[in-house]
Amino acid sequence: MAEVVAMKRPDAEGPVASHLSGGVLTLTLVNPPANALSLATMEALQAALDRAREDDAVRVVVIAAAGKVFCAGHDLKELTAHRSDADRGRAFYERTMRACSDLMQSIVRLPKPVIAEVAGVASAAGCQLVASCDLAIATTETTFATPGVNIGLFCSTPMVALSRNVSRKHAMEMLLTGEMIDATTAREFGLVNRVVPPEYLNQIVRKYAETIVSKSPLTLKIGKEAFYAQAEMGLSDAYDYAAKVMVENMMARDAEEGIGAFIEKRKPEWTGE
Amino acid sequence: MAEVVAMKRPDAEGPVASHLSGGVLTLTLVNPPANALSLATMEALQAALDRAREDDAVRVVVIAAAGKVFCAGHDLKELTAHRSDADRGRAFYERTMRACSDLMQSIVRLPKPVIAEVAGVASAAGCQLVASCDLAIATTETTFATPGVNIGLFCSTPMVALSRNVSRKHAMEMLLTGEMIDATTAREFGLVNRVVPPEYLNQIVRKYAETIVSKSPLTLKIGKEAFYAQAEMGLSDAYDYAAKVMVENMMARDAEEGIGAFIEKRKPEWTGE
Amino acid sequence: MAEVVAMKRPDAEGPVASHLSGGVLTLTLVNPPANALSLATMEALQAALDRAREDDAVRVVVIAAAGKVFCAGHDLKELTAHRSDADRGRAFYERTMRACSDLMQSIVRLPKPVIAEVAGVASAAGCQLVASCDLAIATTETTFATPGVNIGLFCSTPMVALSRNVSRKHAMEMLLTGEMIDATTAREFGLVNRVVPPEYLNQIVRKYAETIVSKSPLTLKIGKEAFYAQAEMGLSDAYDYAAKVMVENMMARDAEEGIGAFIEKRKPEWTGE
Repeated sequence: MAEVVAMKRPDAEGPVASHLSGGVLTLTLVNPPANALSLATMEALQAALDRAREDDAVRVVVIAAAGKVFCAGHDLKELTAHRSDADRGRAFYERTMRACSDLMQSIVRLPKPVIAEVAGVASAAGCQLVASCDLAIATTETTFATPGVNIGLFCSTPMVALSRNVSRKHAMEMLLTGEMIDATTAREFGLVNRVVPPEYLNQIVRKYAETIVSKSPLTLKIGKEAFYAQAEMGLSDAYDYAAKVMVENMMARDAEEGIGAFIEKRKPEWTGE
Repeated sequence: MAEVVAMKRPDAEGPVASHLSGGVLTLTLVNPPANALSLATMEALQAALDRAREDDAVRVVVIAAAGKVFCAGHDLKELTAHRSDADRGRAFYERTMRACSDLMQSIVRLPKPVIAEVAGVASAAGCQLVASCDLAIATTETTFATPGVNIGLFCSTPMVALSRNVSRKHAMEMLLTGEMIDATTAREFGLVNRVVPPEYLNQIVRKYAETIVSKSPLTLKIGKEAFYAQAEMGLSDAYDYAAKVMVENMMARDAEEGIGAFIEKRKPEWTGE
Repeated sequence: MAEVVAMKRPDAEGPVASHLSGGVLTLTLVNPPANALSLATMEALQAALDRAREDDAVRVVVIAAAGKVFCAGHDLKELTAHRSDADRGRAFYERTMRACSDLMQSIVRLPKPVIAEVAGVASAAGCQLVASCDLAIATTETTFATPGVNIGLFCSTPMVALSRNVSRKHAMEMLLTGEMIDATTAREFGLVNRVVPPEYLNQIVRKYAETIVSKSPLTLKIGKEAFYAQAEMGLSDAYDYAAKVMVENMMARDAEEGIGAFIEKRKPEWTGE
């Protein structure tokens, strides 16, 4: 079995703290009160995800936040400051939206599961961050919103992620009214998987993460990649593709080991191959 | 802020009454008991939507109906009358289905939010009308069905809208059995946003409409258009597109005003530019 | 009206029993305890569906299972036995995954509704079988899982069907954790239509099947085919397509009869033309 190194890495410079323990990399937004996605924060998160992609010791990523707000979205003061640029900010806004879209897609494309650990408000790009993760656990006190419409800036990039999580009328209600929904509603909508009391959030997220760490990392990589790929295909293409993925997966050592262990009623030993 | 003219326009000729108040255009089907979508009714609705598109005084559209049936779908007597045409009705059916499909898409393409205010039965193309709106509020006594299968005419155009609102097994149950579902079930399925007591329907719809009227019309236009466009794209294309939309939205005066007002903790003044 | 022949056909050779009564063809997996989808079982189911497609006496198909497990997915012992093939099983796995994908698509493409009657565990390809049916009724004791991740073989083909039934976060939770969900959760997710006490399962499935048998088989064929076709199209193409389907449906004798019967308040007599 691949050694899962329990270690505490030094926190990254900047607005994102990084902590690795038992194969679980927790990336924590540490820029309260808003934990806004400034360009610096997005670049720090992106760099952390890029490292996580290559680091075999990272088996699952958890995205969390310090303080009462999970993430309030883009940094409006930063955006406004660039109004005085020669181009009225256009170049900066392009860079910001590119960075944001790349970041969200990096979560989806990361060959390791990503769990959002959501306490407090997740709004605009903060709601998008939750929607972009593979799984999301929230507390009973968490709220979600896509309130861009209130400030003249429709949550057009957040809705790419949101509308791939919840049905159309639900997404439209959030987007057109800009109003908050509570965690129970978010669970009914399909935006989060579980809603737990605040004092249990970390424990429950840890339980999910440990469950996933116990699986073959190769299998998770194959499966996560295939999930999002097939989701964009028609049925026939999706089956052609997924059938090939299954055959390749069958030929891997971890499938041979896992199926063998199941038949022999013993615990599998993954090598990630 | 763009002046929202409170006025009562004369009702349109024909089966659709039109009333504008506080930026909210209410289009009411006034052809009870069935409020059937005869060709004349569809043409009247289409004309009203075409006018609404161009009329800056219209900020939100509400589609409502008079009587106990919201809308029972196509006018079966009208369809049957054309069986005696030389072509056994084919040309008329083509014209009818074209008009219906255009009408439903006009709701989706209208650059202003459309809310269905649903009291009573919404069946077949009537159910499609609800599914085609951005938001839908129903009463506890509202029921929905796609019962075409009972009369040998599968609800094939209604299901285009229905299946973009509710999950496959739910859509298939409605389509294959033709049976009614109640409003609570419709809410669980995602077909309606809210279910309210009949005596509060108008008031709640009004509240939603007024909430939306308070937003920048330009922002709503940008957002609604982008919502349905990105919904048909793969993730990567959707983000490329939405990021561009966000940048253009940022460059608009209403975003500058809205973000400025938010930072300065004052009410924004929209110009719709 | 097309004669619905009530007859009992001899059980098919092999692991699938076949019984036709009142237009309802029940295909029962009779290979307990696991009712695994061995190649032989898949071929038997495929052959039964191919016959059902051509047999006008079959109006609805029910897929059921004998024993405490509905279907535990692929036959792991069979898969493992082929590890000793010269190609380490690759050719056999390709054949198996092809057969499985073809089988699931045959359910979707069958021009007759298919109902899953699910008592007991439905896991991996067994869960996929349920997800692939048009409707699914489960008992309060039924559980569902896509546990391939536990044995190193991600449920990549099952997720093609699963992710077309349930929302992304729900699908991902099942796929990444491999854990069981109960029937009530499956209903909330949209994987099954109804959950009933075990002693009523057969009766409720029969009720659904009889409701559907009472419809025009031509109308069901037109509608089911159109449903899955339009689901893969953009809105505009979907409406162009569905409008044409509606016109053709209108020109059919069963629509003329059905609409006529409705107007005249009498029972329609279907000819399937």
